Amino acid sequence: MEQHHLCPKFESAFQLLGKRWNGLIIRVLMTGPKRFREISAVIPNMSDKMLVERLKQLECEGVVKREVYPETPVRIEYVLTKKGQSLEPAMDAFQTWAEKWMN
Amino acid sequence: MEQHHLCPKFESAFQLLGKRWNGLIIRVLMTGPKRFREISAVIPNMSDKMLVERLKQLECEGVVKREVYPETPVRIEYVLTKKGQSLEPAMDAFQTWAEKWMN
Repeated sequence: MEQHHLCPKFESAFQLLGKRWNGLIIRVLMTGPKRFREISAVIPNMSDKMLVERLKQLECEGVVKREVYPETPVRIEYVLTKKGQSLEPAMDAFQTWAEKWMN
Repeated sequence: MEQHHLCPKFESAFQLLGKRWNGLIIRVLMTGPKRFREISAVIPNMSDKMLVERLKQLECEGVVKREVYPETPVRIEYVLTKKGQSLEPAMDAFQTWAEKWMN
């Protein structure tokens, strides 16, 4: 019988999205670029420290980009990269499944 | 601004699929009911002990069903439930994304 190998990318991707807050941060950024305060304002129960950490991880994974506008005062916005935006259909399909089936 | 809440079901679902081997076991069972040995034969590098544990978790989550046929010797098969089968479109969408974007 043919042996099965699952791409390790698949498991890594699920781990990234399964990590608390990451899915929600991505969902919020799907509505457009946001400043730190705008993200924290719409996600209750998440500390600023946690948001800093998660945004760094998502940036490191190439899902989120930190845009710095050299204005006075400096303006910083977080925006989804193409990689991040491309998550939408998969997240929608998975959310539909989870809403129907997860207890 | 409207507050965002992500369904905890969504994160739980991602955690389940992000756990090593689970995605692969589900993929194998998408090809039809299988006996323990048939699953272990097609997934290299996974110990029997690990497969026992993962099948129990997937059964507990209602994704996999253990069917016992009272023959001599007894025959036991693992099969995806409706919940498990319904994962296919979401897993496909996510895999497409992971193959394209994950390093």
